[in-house]
Amino acid sequence: MNIIDIISKKRDGKELQKEEIEYFVKEYTKGTITDYQASALVMAIYINGMNYEETKNLCLAMAHSGETLDLSDISDTIIDKHSSGGVGDKITLIVMPIIATFGIPVAKMSGRGLGITGGTIDKLESIPGYRTDLSLEEFKNNIKEIGISLIGQTKDLAPADKKIYALRDTIACTESIPLIASSIMSKKIAAGANKIVLEVTYGKGAFMKTEEDAISLSKIMSEIGRLSGIETVCVITNMNQPIGKNIGNSLEIEEAVRALKGDMEEDVKEIVKHISAIIMKMANMGDDLEENKKKVIENIENGKAYKKFVELVQKQGGDVNYLSNIEKAKNIVEIKSQEEGYIQELNAEIIGKSAIALGAGRMKKEDPIDYTAGIVLQKKIRDKVNIGETLAYIHTNKDNFEEVTKDILTAYKIGKEKPEKYIHISRTI
Amino acid sequence: MNIIDIISKKRDGKELQKEEIEYFVKEYTKGTITDYQASALVMAIYINGMNYEETKNLCLAMAHSGETLDLSDISDTIIDKHSSGGVGDKITLIVMPIIATFGIPVAKMSGRGLGITGGTIDKLESIPGYRTDLSLEEFKNNIKEIGISLIGQTKDLAPADKKIYALRDTIACTESIPLIASSIMSKKIAAGANKIVLEVTYGKGAFMKTEEDAISLSKIMSEIGRLSGIETVCVITNMNQPIGKNIGNSLEIEEAVRALKGDMEEDVKEIVKHISAIIMKMANMGDDLEENKKKVIENIENGKAYKKFVELVQKQGGDVNYLSNIEKAKNIVEIKSQEEGYIQELNAEIIGKSAIALGAGRMKKEDPIDYTAGIVLQKKIRDKVNIGETLAYIHTNKDNFEEVTKDILTAYKIGKEKPEKYIHISRTI
Repeated sequence: MNIIDIISKKRDGKELQKEEIEYFVKEYTKGTITDYQASALVMAIYINGMNYEETKNLCLAMAHSGETLDLSDISDTIIDKHSSGGVGDKITLIVMPIIATFGIPVAKMSGRGLGITGGTIDKLESIPGYRTDLSLEEFKNNIKEIGISLIGQTKDLAPADKKIYALRDTIACTESIPLIASSIMSKKIAAGANKIVLEVTYGKGAFMKTEEDAISLSKIMSEIGRLSGIETVCVITNMNQPIGKNIGNSLEIEEAVRALKGDMEEDVKEIVKHISAIIMKMANMGDDLEENKKKVIENIENGKAYKKFVELVQKQGGDVNYLSNIEKAKNIVEIKSQEEGYIQELNAEIIGKSAIALGAGRMKKEDPIDYTAGIVLQKKIRDKVNIGETLAYIHTNKDNFEEVTKDILTAYKIGKEKPEKYIHISRTI
Repeated sequence: MNIIDIISKKRDGKELQKEEIEYFVKEYTKGTITDYQASALVMAIYINGMNYEETKNLCLAMAHSGETLDLSDISDTIIDKHSSGGVGDKITLIVMPIIATFGIPVAKMSGRGLGITGGTIDKLESIPGYRTDLSLEEFKNNIKEIGISLIGQTKDLAPADKKIYALRDTIACTESIPLIASSIMSKKIAAGANKIVLEVTYGKGAFMKTEEDAISLSKIMSEIGRLSGIETVCVITNMNQPIGKNIGNSLEIEEAVRALKGDMEEDVKEIVKHISAIIMKMANMGDDLEENKKKVIENIENGKAYKKFVELVQKQGGDVNYLSNIEKAKNIVEIKSQEEGYIQELNAEIIGKSAIALGAGRMKKEDPIDYTAGIVLQKKIRDKVNIGETLAYIHTNKDNFEEVTKDILTAYKIGKEKPEKYIHISRTI
């Protein structure tokens, strides 16, 4: 077997065999296949595609390219939850403590934000003292003791995925459904999950711009899961406008804290209840989603969910007092509407980019983050607004925010008619 | 302008602009665009193709990526002749001295052999003392003094082509018509030619396997020529069986010497006359090809052609006495026919590979060559053969040639009927 023959096959649109994909992943991880050969193959995959079988084989080969986590001593059911990314998406921070209140072990590794999509790890690190770099032993011990741990991804999981992911970014091969699907699933499989819930986002603030692409991606990920013996459920969510009110790291911790205490925005509530209910069903806690949702609300209202979150923060070294006294940026500036009517559109991409411009995110991996920076939305799609009424607040330590203010105004489209219902969850696959 | 946008465009099958192609070639030559980015773009070009305009722009950008030769002080008409490669193809060695006898300046840079196709430079170096590494000054002086010089390619001509050519070899992107066309033409343009004759080979012993591909390649090269203001003629030749009798470096010098003295195989004669006549026409020596062919035969029969070749060899330091006393390999072994009938097929690829196995060629650039090794064909397509009659001789210094003998037998297909006429020159474009 040699890489030139493998490249030729995919170049000509033929199907790659399991052994060929495994050979590529293994030798590329070792470095005997060069970056430029991998690059040619990745481009051929981008253009000519991969079927389900090939995508599964690529995914599994990447998942097993380094260390894999064995969490079977904790429980038979290891559930992981992942979002394909969005603006203001704090669902993981709310769902995971809720799930832990039902005794379902939560062993979650998350990523950092890149571009307009925020990252759970950055959000947690805005809590002073919170350690995201626990050793695997500490991680497992915490799960055994309090039923939950939330840390960053370790370096040794799926190294092939890291190499291929970094390469794709530099050769215009990011938006490929088989490559995205195998990348996401390989990390989850390497992290030891045997049941996976994926929040697949689409729209202006997501990688997948259309609902159709999100459906395609979901189908292929579910199929990879099925072929790999891993139960996989995809919840497709609308990311045309941001989720919830707050965008920014400590601002999202604040909204998550409020949510865990029972004060949730409608979209947040719908998604949290739905995903939590699905996880409960997967963990054999009941097949009736509506019943499960009731239990979710119960464990929020009786204080258990917030208590679990506090326990998590404390266990990982975070300052619990900070949760009721979250730091604010120097400047909080009101953005007022110049029109009257109903919000027709609230462009998540513009909001995401504006949040970065305020200091909340990074365009390159090395960029620093201002945890307090961000945006708080006061009006969302279907809301009524009058001239002079507040649309949003910006939070920033920068003194120059004129441009951002203007950009945020362009994110809002206001019209006379109240829009049709805005769908939060498009479907579950 | 940035390389990621350029890659994206070709990835999506769009046309690249002149500026984009020039940017890629310039920055890749400098090294600011990486091999893996170039690799992704080359694969996208392979799969999605390039139109004439793009191919011309790529060709010209590569031609001007380094030094270019200015031969205008020698003559207004600088004619170059190139073969796309084959087995036993010694046409250049015969045509160039003939052309020089008519006072048409011959300033020819040639390549080395790789794989089954031989290289003019290797053949000339089999003559003891012959220097292929003249300085450009020596090269020009020789042309001024005796009207001909034949040397190897200098390092500084078309460096972008060298980088892209080497890359293509490692990423399964050799057989792409726009990439082959721009590669060949860029070298010719950089070498200072303003009129180009291309021998475009097809068949078992050539890169282009079918006549149709050779025609496509010829059309695009002619069009690049036209768009670049360079008169270009392509002569499409059949390389299903080797050209002439001898395959191997000093064996081909021997056949060239014989040919220049008037003793030519039918196929060699037909191609030599045709290409020489076309070059004469391009050099304004007469539009009537049949008249030109007669003059070619005249200058062979009156001894001028061979005399010019001797002059060339002497001028470049070669041992002239060697030409009448060419060294032979230790073992010369007869291969006898085991069947009776007419030769239906004589597979040039098998013959080329067998010659390499005997020591006549290299599979990798670093491999050494045995100049004396090779094959002398006694029977070719349409010849009659009896059982026990000689098909070919192998020349080798190796003692183990059993396998090769068997392979050569498989190259011959013998049948009852005499085949239809075998076409040497398919067409001229």
